[in-house]
Amino acid sequence: MSLDAAKGYFIKNGKPFFLISGEIHYFRLDPKLWEKHLRLLKQSGANTTSTYIPWDWHEYEEGKFDFTGETHPARNLIKYINLCKKNGLQLIVKPGPYILAEYEAEGLPGWLLKRISKNSFALDEFGNIISPNLVSYMTDEFLDFTFRWYDKIMPIIAEHQASNGGPITMMQVCNEVGVFQWLSGKIDYNPTVINLYKEFLNAKYNTIENLNSVYGTEYPSFEKISAPIDKIKNRQDYCAYFDFHLFYRHYFAMYLDLLIKKIRSYGINVQLTHNIPGWIYGNAAELPMLISTYEEVMKTRKDLIFGLDHIPEFVSFRNAHSDLACNKILEAMQPYGPVWAAEFQSGTREHHVKCDPNDLETFYFASLAHGLKGLNYYMFSQGINPDGKGFYGKAFYYQTPLSENGVKSPLYDSTKKVNDFISKEKEELLLSEVKSEICVGFYKPYFYTELTTSQLLKEKRLYIEKLGLTLDPRFVREEIFFNGLLRSLQTLNFNYDISDLENSNVENLLRYKQLWVVTTEFMDASTQKLLADYVKNGGSLILYPEIPIIDLYLNPCSVLKDELGVKLTKSVSPNKIDAFGIDDVYTVFREKQIFQNVSKTEIVSTTKTGEVCGIRKNVGNGMATILGYVFGYTTDDHLHLIEKIVSLDSIKRQVKLSDPDIQFVIRKGKKYSYMFLLNYHNQKKSFTVNTRKYTMNPFSCKVIKQKL
Amino acid sequence: MSLDAAKGYFIKNGKPFFLISGEIHYFRLDPKLWEKHLRLLKQSGANTTSTYIPWDWHEYEEGKFDFTGETHPARNLIKYINLCKKNGLQLIVKPGPYILAEYEAEGLPGWLLKRISKNSFALDEFGNIISPNLVSYMTDEFLDFTFRWYDKIMPIIAEHQASNGGPITMMQVCNEVGVFQWLSGKIDYNPTVINLYKEFLNAKYNTIENLNSVYGTEYPSFEKISAPIDKIKNRQDYCAYFDFHLFYRHYFAMYLDLLIKKIRSYGINVQLTHNIPGWIYGNAAELPMLISTYEEVMKTRKDLIFGLDHIPEFVSFRNAHSDLACNKILEAMQPYGPVWAAEFQSGTREHHVKCDPNDLETFYFASLAHGLKGLNYYMFSQGINPDGKGFYGKAFYYQTPLSENGVKSPLYDSTKKVNDFISKEKEELLLSEVKSEICVGFYKPYFYTELTTSQLLKEKRLYIEKLGLTLDPRFVREEIFFNGLLRSLQTLNFNYDISDLENSNVENLLRYKQLWVVTTEFMDASTQKLLADYVKNGGSLILYPEIPIIDLYLNPCSVLKDELGVKLTKSVSPNKIDAFGIDDVYTVFREKQIFQNVSKTEIVSTTKTGEVCGIRKNVGNGMATILGYVFGYTTDDHLHLIEKIVSLDSIKRQVKLSDPDIQFVIRKGKKYSYMFLLNYHNQKKSFTVNTRKYTMNPFSCKVIKQKL
Repeated sequence: MSLDAAKGYFIKNGKPFFLISGEIHYFRLDPKLWEKHLRLLKQSGANTTSTYIPWDWHEYEEGKFDFTGETHPARNLIKYINLCKKNGLQLIVKPGPYILAEYEAEGLPGWLLKRISKNSFALDEFGNIISPNLVSYMTDEFLDFTFRWYDKIMPIIAEHQASNGGPITMMQVCNEVGVFQWLSGKIDYNPTVINLYKEFLNAKYNTIENLNSVYGTEYPSFEKISAPIDKIKNRQDYCAYFDFHLFYRHYFAMYLDLLIKKIRSYGINVQLTHNIPGWIYGNAAELPMLISTYEEVMKTRKDLIFGLDHIPEFVSFRNAHSDLACNKILEAMQPYGPVWAAEFQSGTREHHVKCDPNDLETFYFASLAHGLKGLNYYMFSQGINPDGKGFYGKAFYYQTPLSENGVKSPLYDSTKKVNDFISKEKEELLLSEVKSEICVGFYKPYFYTELTTSQLLKEKRLYIEKLGLTLDPRFVREEIFFNGLLRSLQTLNFNYDISDLENSNVENLLRYKQLWVVTTEFMDASTQKLLADYVKNGGSLILYPEIPIIDLYLNPCSVLKDELGVKLTKSVSPNKIDAFGIDDVYTVFREKQIFQNVSKTEIVSTTKTGEVCGIRKNVGNGMATILGYVFGYTTDDHLHLIEKIVSLDSIKRQVKLSDPDIQFVIRKGKKYSYMFLLNYHNQKKSFTVNTRKYTMNPFSCKVIKQKL
Repeated sequence: MSLDAAKGYFIKNGKPFFLISGEIHYFRLDPKLWEKHLRLLKQSGANTTSTYIPWDWHEYEEGKFDFTGETHPARNLIKYINLCKKNGLQLIVKPGPYILAEYEAEGLPGWLLKRISKNSFALDEFGNIISPNLVSYMTDEFLDFTFRWYDKIMPIIAEHQASNGGPITMMQVCNEVGVFQWLSGKIDYNPTVINLYKEFLNAKYNTIENLNSVYGTEYPSFEKISAPIDKIKNRQDYCAYFDFHLFYRHYFAMYLDLLIKKIRSYGINVQLTHNIPGWIYGNAAELPMLISTYEEVMKTRKDLIFGLDHIPEFVSFRNAHSDLACNKILEAMQPYGPVWAAEFQSGTREHHVKCDPNDLETFYFASLAHGLKGLNYYMFSQGINPDGKGFYGKAFYYQTPLSENGVKSPLYDSTKKVNDFISKEKEELLLSEVKSEICVGFYKPYFYTELTTSQLLKEKRLYIEKLGLTLDPRFVREEIFFNGLLRSLQTLNFNYDISDLENSNVENLLRYKQLWVVTTEFMDASTQKLLADYVKNGGSLILYPEIPIIDLYLNPCSVLKDELGVKLTKSVSPNKIDAFGIDDVYTVFREKQIFQNVSKTEIVSTTKTGEVCGIRKNVGNGMATILGYVFGYTTDDHLHLIEKIVSLDSIKRQVKLSDPDIQFVIRKGKKYSYMFLLNYHNQKKSFTVNTRKYTMNPFSCKVIKQKL
């Protein structure tokens, strides 16, 4: 048996394959019940199971390993692997070194954290240990112990991998690399990191003069550079942090590359994967930032595919656009691999969160509509932690399809329903596609802020006013891009694809009828040039809320503006504008870009003071629609506005649906089409699609299959 | 006719009265449809309607007023008032000066903002205007123009007040005073404010030496004191901000008092009200902080009652505890008036928010269970803004019971169902009560942070580490108090009351079987003394996560600790403890309070390193249960823990319910009891209450009425 992912879907024994997995943690279950859980998972229609293999659990004292249960029956990993095989389940293993998983010390052995020196921990700018559970990835001591762990666990995995007749078909390398830095906002300044940072700068700039000329600094040598540690006070600080973000992308790539090379050295040939975290309390707007942190390794290691942790917590209209948006962004970033959910919420980590089966079932079907090619229900089975091993106490996850004793909850039936649907439709569904006439640009540098304005950062380091900027990139990407544009397009039932602008070209972009790009004041010259060329070659570009005029290091750069022949000033006026014939459209800020010399240009938006804040302009063979005001999605006018713009290029919906609350997605296979109708509302809905009548229960999905 | 609120409920013509109002904005409707909207509101079972009277709308140019429609038919306020009367509806008027209401410039006249001098605006620490729409409440110029507005509008209101045979029974004074300061974190440092601040300090401390001795400063005179403007760097800064918070409470009281005196001078005798904002994206954890900002006026003007803005946005188990918690806190703060919802969500301001009728109907019934004595559906009717007058564009509110044209939505039927239920049960329901054996202490000083860590504050001013403290008051009140303790008690179906500790006494507290107090490191001496006396006199005090050892100005103060005879150190250990027989209970922080000399004390909690972190101790005639670790509500263990402690004083639930997901509330009237069963889950539920079987639909409420 073999499993790989060389295309946009998984391939098993050469054939397209939908991976349906359920996460079960053998180390959190009574071994007498292992087989019961696996059998019930299999009966739900899954073909795979997934588990961490906690280093701490198996190397229970330094140098003492147990994989056969001699010290504790739940350490009998060999038996568990064989049970997976016996029950016809493929196995995904996640042997760390970090596992997180609400395991004490993120799965690192307790003895290790006492054993290693201070210099092997993640250290703050003053050299203090950030957390007693956080080691620094690339320190020799940590890697040395990790590889001793690998020396024991990897041969076992190799022996039981599919090519040797075992159940193991996939392995996750470490877990959510970088997640703590993002969550805490505490940067690891371990000397190992800083040395690598200097090497990175040296390799990037070659001479210190080059760096100085970009930053506007006067460093005598790379050796004299120190990593940025404080708030951004000026352009020099900003440049340093920008490169520090780039470095961290490089650093994560180095670390994963090192682990993978080591893993391969044990003869392990299974598909490798890594998971991307990012929903925070039901909001996925920052998940694309997390995706961006893996951009370098996505380019350098095509044998590593990334899965998304899809944890909506409270499924509702509020976050109904989020899984599609993240799927599309990941698809753009890793065209070589399938979009899959490494953690697909079933149950909840916090007892006070409630995920009802109706809601989750709707989310599951929506995810199929949104192109998911594999999933791992997380958690399929509740677990009870061994004494002292659970970070949050004894119970791990609530409201799961199976309780710790293997008793089914109503969610079990939901997973079974979804699994049966997937299995029945086979390749026809798996290979089905959605046609999009709209492309949305994804510009990664707008997401390089996890070190300067992280999720839970106590003191932000980036205040745009200090740099003379007006648009906070985080606001732009969350409110304007993710919860504004992407949510609106989906609410309006217009399909879209995402393009990673830095890895795109004019030909690719011209395959769409429209390209939407949400911009801030800065953008590198070559991306600006790409957008200009796209227009000149016949593209239709919609760009807002501010045309870039500086590059990523905040040096003047107005390629796009110049090539489009746009002249601008700024002015302040009330928060409403008239746009595309709609009166009083709300804009977030009073400051707007005002277009000058517009005598030969179509005026599409004006301020309440009569100034021109939006134009449509023929340039070369194409058309540029430039809007100089900030809007997300708060009023229905914003939907009207987007619909009006979309219609300008005769983009139409695939069907006519009478209730605007209902979302639809049409996936086309070879012989059949699947229309997914999604009701994310707690209301019974009756409506027509074209002329046919439908009724849907609150929070539900309906799939209409038709022969093509 | 008369309406007042001298008790815990409204009184109409001397009889208890449930106020059922719907908000309709005449200025946002076609006057031809005014009567249709009012008639449909009346038909839904409402007895009252409510509206702002926008200053800008009626004083359309300086000194030019229109209340009869000569310049615009929708300015015919007189006609509208008469239509309310004609249709049998009482009327609540809200004539500003501020109205907010997503009206351009918060309802202040456009001409006014151009007319007044810079010094009449709210000014930041550098003397810059904070926003072109924000004036400073107590400036002469603003008050002068306000009173000119009052000179025109108040006689009209007086003429149409109930005592003169008109429909007007209540008036709101200004709107959400202080809300922008809270939201933006930008403090108004207008010289008028600062002068009042100095007077306040003078009145409070009498001599500068007194102030210096509390702060530890060396100011030569009150004149030389400047208001705190920057981050808190030391204890002196902290003291200054603490008093600045107290001052702002005084300042809001002064402003409202001034307006009320003026209003009364026109012979207006109707009940006065003010509204308290505070839900942010469905989370009400900071609403109690807003309540606290009105504490002074609550003491000085008993003729002003406060209503809550209850806007859950997404009704779910996540926020199901919030309305009760806020109601109880308001009840404790204004025992002289009814708890009512000045804005009771029906419909939504943002188009991307969806409030489904099932969800809202459940919320409505839950609110009745939670003791609401009056409500104002906000908005009952959608409105369309006059050109340029809407802050967010043309449409004001979506998904309301009535559309702008007076067409009913499904939510109309929900409001009718609720209104009919209220009306049918009359006084019996209105005067019904819930018995609580548990009292929870509300300590207002923990909420004095709106100037230092406000909701949307860009740069926080309070970092507790800088003061050598370990507990952030905002974290303590949100995660431990509001979303921890109060949510847990409700989830467990234990009733509780709230006591405003600074206005309580031992006798009041002893009426309960238990008193829970969530503490930080600081508390004033007299409250500490109260708690100690409560215990000595036979009370059962549960106190966590840290026994106070300093006062509100961070001077040593360990009255409570000393009187209870507790000796403490601190130490760091894993995030799990063993408590009340439950293993591995998660605690948020590794640092814990460790109890010393515990030989004669019952040990109820120990760290994983074997240290004592929780004790139960007889003191005098009572019992003190002191826990030295931080926990909210994340795991089911936290519920178990709270249930175990509650059971220690033989507090029992009123009925036995088989499904822990279902909440119940039993309200007892004179002849009947009402058992409200609440299903906040998207699941059909079948369960037993005592031995009787019930089935409930997803998101629903059932009321079981029984003769007593």
